Amino acid sequence: MKKIGKQTISFDSPPTILSTACIVGPKESQGPLASYFDQCLDDEFWGEKSWEKAESKIIKETVNMAIAKSGVASSSIDYCFAGDLLNQCISSSFGLRDTNIPFFGIFGACSTFVEGLSLAAIFAESGIENLLCAASSHFCSAEKQFRFPLELGNQRTPTSQWTVTGAGAAVVSKSGTGPYITNITPGKIVDMGIKDANNMGSAMAPAALDTLITHFKDTDRNPSYYDAIITGDLGHIGKSILIDLAKKEGYNIKSNYNDCGVLIFDQEKQDTHAGGSGCGCCGSVFSGYLYKQMQDKKLKKILLMATGALTNSTTSQQGESIPGIAHAISIEL
Amino acid sequence: MKKIGKQTISFDSPPTILSTACIVGPKESQGPLASYFDQCLDDEFWGEKSWEKAESKIIKETVNMAIAKSGVASSSIDYCFAGDLLNQCISSSFGLRDTNIPFFGIFGACSTFVEGLSLAAIFAESGIENLLCAASSHFCSAEKQFRFPLELGNQRTPTSQWTVTGAGAAVVSKSGTGPYITNITPGKIVDMGIKDANNMGSAMAPAALDTLITHFKDTDRNPSYYDAIITGDLGHIGKSILIDLAKKEGYNIKSNYNDCGVLIFDQEKQDTHAGGSGCGCCGSVFSGYLYKQMQDKKLKKILLMATGALTNSTTSQQGESIPGIAHAISIEL
Repeated sequence: MKKIGKQTISFDSPPTILSTACIVGPKESQGPLASYFDQCLDDEFWGEKSWEKAESKIIKETVNMAIAKSGVASSSIDYCFAGDLLNQCISSSFGLRDTNIPFFGIFGACSTFVEGLSLAAIFAESGIENLLCAASSHFCSAEKQFRFPLELGNQRTPTSQWTVTGAGAAVVSKSGTGPYITNITPGKIVDMGIKDANNMGSAMAPAALDTLITHFKDTDRNPSYYDAIITGDLGHIGKSILIDLAKKEGYNIKSNYNDCGVLIFDQEKQDTHAGGSGCGCCGSVFSGYLYKQMQDKKLKKILLMATGALTNSTTSQQGESIPGIAHAISIEL
Repeated sequence: MKKIGKQTISFDSPPTILSTACIVGPKESQGPLASYFDQCLDDEFWGEKSWEKAESKIIKETVNMAIAKSGVASSSIDYCFAGDLLNQCISSSFGLRDTNIPFFGIFGACSTFVEGLSLAAIFAESGIENLLCAASSHFCSAEKQFRFPLELGNQRTPTSQWTVTGAGAAVVSKSGTGPYITNITPGKIVDMGIKDANNMGSAMAPAALDTLITHFKDTDRNPSYYDAIITGDLGHIGKSILIDLAKKEGYNIKSNYNDCGVLIFDQEKQDTHAGGSGCGCCGSVFSGYLYKQMQDKKLKKILLMATGALTNSTTSQQGESIPGIAHAISIEL
């Protein structure tokens, strides 16, 4: 592998994404992508006594499914990377504690899934055989932790996003027949001073812009190189901001750009305001929809760019702004 | 690099730890290692309005100091890895948001510093020039978040550990004259069913044992290979458990083994019960004391094994046990 430009790493022997899996909750199962998900749950608890335990079960079963689909024995997965939105990433640590796979905990808020794919790709290119990455989120555990008790029935602001209940997982391997991770552009923290914790799309869009432009310059590519450029999860508001910001920088992404948070819910029918969010949004939309589109050769080259808001409720209460980050990876057949 | 044994990675061109830096709080400044720390603060706020903001400032200034000492321009640091104990790792994201270095957020509880060194070593061996890693913790922000408001003046149980106020940072480079990271043994999550959130040493010791034994078997080394085996942070109780458990497995580590949480405080004079803990404990003890012992050639081969309890207050309240993890790296002249 070699570093190209300012912050992109290009792979000489691009690692393969051997398999993916995703499990989603009831609301996601009523959305436009339902048929692409491996398993759709009909309640938020999935037989567990708490939302946190349910989220752990979701990431656990998603990981088991990804491993089973890959054809690689669980004992042959060398290392795994996982994270989530819960304090101290407990969904991942409790969900994966029985896997018996050496574990790197990661935290990139909603960018976690692509952060994991990036690290897995680096390990694979460096000679490690099989890697696993996973990320999850859960609407109820996230609302409880970041916002208000669900029982309060608070009204949501129009700019707010709906945390996806779900998880995505992928097995990345040194060798295989693709889809290949051809390069990665890990992002910088960008903070433009947005303080509204109910408008994450606006807070994260500048970070997405920074990584997007850097990626194009580093790789000497332009938007038309890709069949699809997909962010996760700017939602409707962040998406339109990114289109505008990119245009000002001379890049027209309008025709082939979309966002996981926009794709996963039907904005009109599902009352999800600015769209989906959460580590599980990009995780499940990539693992379910996008990966299968690539397997069917409907998409041959995509740029997957997951965005995260690196904040918590304490920093909001202390009047801080919201730092954003975006990690991009090129996935090609 | 190549994988050896079950879970160790051995480096063909071992990366160098070019520089380290550490800043600690007032209690740490009264402990036995005070003279080794780069900067000792005389209050927990360091001029900030909240403990969270103070912790961010500590990691920020520690990182700046490590970069300055390395002689590498900040703009030539390719990627950084950082994490902490606060919800959503805000100390790191706020502390490092102005660095302008592509950022991987990591979470391994008190094992975070060695997790970062491990990832930095992988990147360096794979051809990336300069990496940064950092971790922090703060007694007051941790007590507030994980236990009780400090103002309550709660009594602490004898098995409890004292979260270190401090941060450690290191610049890892592809080339240099050592100390070298020669191999890494990333750990698995191990949960032996301990549920006492005030006895983290007991909860983490089995994970430390698992990684330790695996490391010895993978590398075909035994305890006497190292001048020092250092865990961070099992504290007094976890340390004695690990010695016993290792003995049962046929490894006598008693003569050359110690723990960062034991080293940093004077147990009798400082009223810190079972010893120090927190990401900043291993971070500052390594960056301050151990690294300088290696520079002075008093230690030539060490095994640094940081341990983490992958839990939070919600899981404790829901009756869950405490999963532990331990990541080990060999550092040699």
